[in-house]
Amino acid sequence: MRPIALDAMGGDHAPKVTVEGALLAHRQGIPVVLVGPTAVLQQELRKQGGDLPIVEAPEYITMHDQATDVRKKRRASINVCMELVKQGEASAVVAMGHTGATLASALFNLGRIRGVDRPTLLIELPSEKGRTFLTDGGANVDCKPEWLVQFAVMATAYAQAQGIAEPSVGLLSIGEEEHKGNELTLQTFPLLKAAPGLRFYGNVEGRDIFKGTTDIVVSDGYTGNVVLKLSEGEARTIFKWIREALSGGSLLTRLGALLVRPALQSLRAKMDPAEYGAMPLLGVEGPVFIGHGSADGRAVLSAIRKARGVVEAGLVERVRAGMARLAG
Amino acid sequence: MRPIALDAMGGDHAPKVTVEGALLAHRQGIPVVLVGPTAVLQQELRKQGGDLPIVEAPEYITMHDQATDVRKKRRASINVCMELVKQGEASAVVAMGHTGATLASALFNLGRIRGVDRPTLLIELPSEKGRTFLTDGGANVDCKPEWLVQFAVMATAYAQAQGIAEPSVGLLSIGEEEHKGNELTLQTFPLLKAAPGLRFYGNVEGRDIFKGTTDIVVSDGYTGNVVLKLSEGEARTIFKWIREALSGGSLLTRLGALLVRPALQSLRAKMDPAEYGAMPLLGVEGPVFIGHGSADGRAVLSAIRKARGVVEAGLVERVRAGMARLAG
Repeated sequence: MRPIALDAMGGDHAPKVTVEGALLAHRQGIPVVLVGPTAVLQQELRKQGGDLPIVEAPEYITMHDQATDVRKKRRASINVCMELVKQGEASAVVAMGHTGATLASALFNLGRIRGVDRPTLLIELPSEKGRTFLTDGGANVDCKPEWLVQFAVMATAYAQAQGIAEPSVGLLSIGEEEHKGNELTLQTFPLLKAAPGLRFYGNVEGRDIFKGTTDIVVSDGYTGNVVLKLSEGEARTIFKWIREALSGGSLLTRLGALLVRPALQSLRAKMDPAEYGAMPLLGVEGPVFIGHGSADGRAVLSAIRKARGVVEAGLVERVRAGMARLAG
Repeated sequence: MRPIALDAMGGDHAPKVTVEGALLAHRQGIPVVLVGPTAVLQQELRKQGGDLPIVEAPEYITMHDQATDVRKKRRASINVCMELVKQGEASAVVAMGHTGATLASALFNLGRIRGVDRPTLLIELPSEKGRTFLTDGGANVDCKPEWLVQFAVMATAYAQAQGIAEPSVGLLSIGEEEHKGNELTLQTFPLLKAAPGLRFYGNVEGRDIFKGTTDIVVSDGYTGNVVLKLSEGEARTIFKWIREALSGGSLLTRLGALLVRPALQSLRAKMDPAEYGAMPLLGVEGPVFIGHGSADGRAVLSAIRKARGVVEAGLVERVRAGMARLAG
């Protein structure tokens, strides 16, 4: 397969962790090309004792830049990544951090798939059934009903590329009944019901996200972003309380804490966003994945692995086919 | 103090658990009057070996009724409860379950406090700092910016009645910066900044709810309801996974599990919605509290205790004063 283009300058700890992750991926046989200032990346590679192909990009977007700065910094690493995919020299883009800039760069350089009004960020959350895909994750805060239908179609294509043959779709609302919801969900419900190629379950509620009632949950990006950050924050708080409760207890409790630590640690890892690697940006003419800005090398590796798997399953072709079927 | 009017027929397990909760409250010296069909309630009291005053209400709202049915069933127990508060014969209404009907009955019988466009449901969530008050919890799915300001004013009055002298208010959004958010939050931000008597912090994100960054978090009722149900569902799932991880592990893990069980159970209780008793409905001309429909006797007691405490702190007077100051 063609290499994955990694924006080596993206995220809070670049280029250290991006080079680390790329080297780990390389050792697993996944071809990666680093994109950024050659001198900087060569120095980091030497420091880590590795060797990888580099594509030169003299500039890059920092976390302090605006999303629109991708139009000013034309030779920024994120733009060069997109260009590589567009020219067929890379199979996917992986970028840690700056969601807005990556979204803007993808729109600007790759453009939208036919029929897509707005690309969407897909979030993956752990659930009792495995995982829940939530769209939109924050790319579109105010939405039209038709956009939510498009998000559902694109998320279905993504879930299928992940091996779920007929993913079910729930509309995030405040009650199961069709007549419960806000203006947006009430208008979206009949559209989802009528859309071809979707396995529409009906309304789901906040509690269904972790229960895993449906494979996919659709909402506007404001609510989706609140859900993402709330669920991460709540897990962090609960595990913090558990640590405190176990370490501050009686001698017997502290002994018990030692014994259960490995089991709790593997559970904590299951809830760790880094495990999920990266969010796909769906609806643009190329596979684009955005990871946490605070990612470490392991999270960069997860992001690259995720991108590779989904690319091999023909993600963009599946999204195109879904959108074409929706257009009728 | 005047007794609290308990809708003895509300919730999934009435009148058993409502009578249980009322008897527990009575034993703690809190005066309660049961409202519902006298014969049914007398029988339940006899069964439980207790005695409490009853106010007759021949009808009641079931979980299958529509909210608007409170206008048809004029002598329904929830309407009689509101009537008792209006006549000054009871100090507050406590109802388990049917949120929509309780809201409709309160509006119909008590009316709104001057200046309040829409009453709001206030949710209480555990946080690292103690607790977070979230408004609106689902009474108003589509909101106008001015309503969110009113919710913030009413929640501030409630938090003050709970003993927090100068509660801070955060606007739930997708980024800390003032320019981040959806149309509703962008329009609400300057209004909250300018509102008298509010300690406005600025935008908060989903992760801040459990972190406890602000005492109060304001959002529309669609998002608030999703937050409520997601946070309950996530806690349930995490504790389920913990049980599974500890009981399914090695012999040493299972031994450790036995030792840490008490510490984890008290943590679980902290996350239990029943601990929080009931949500206040703010903005109507009387103190109204709505508990979980699935409440047990202990949760009914919590609801009654919460109502008592807030009534004694002059909740309705505080909300009136806050709204008057907002009107200028």
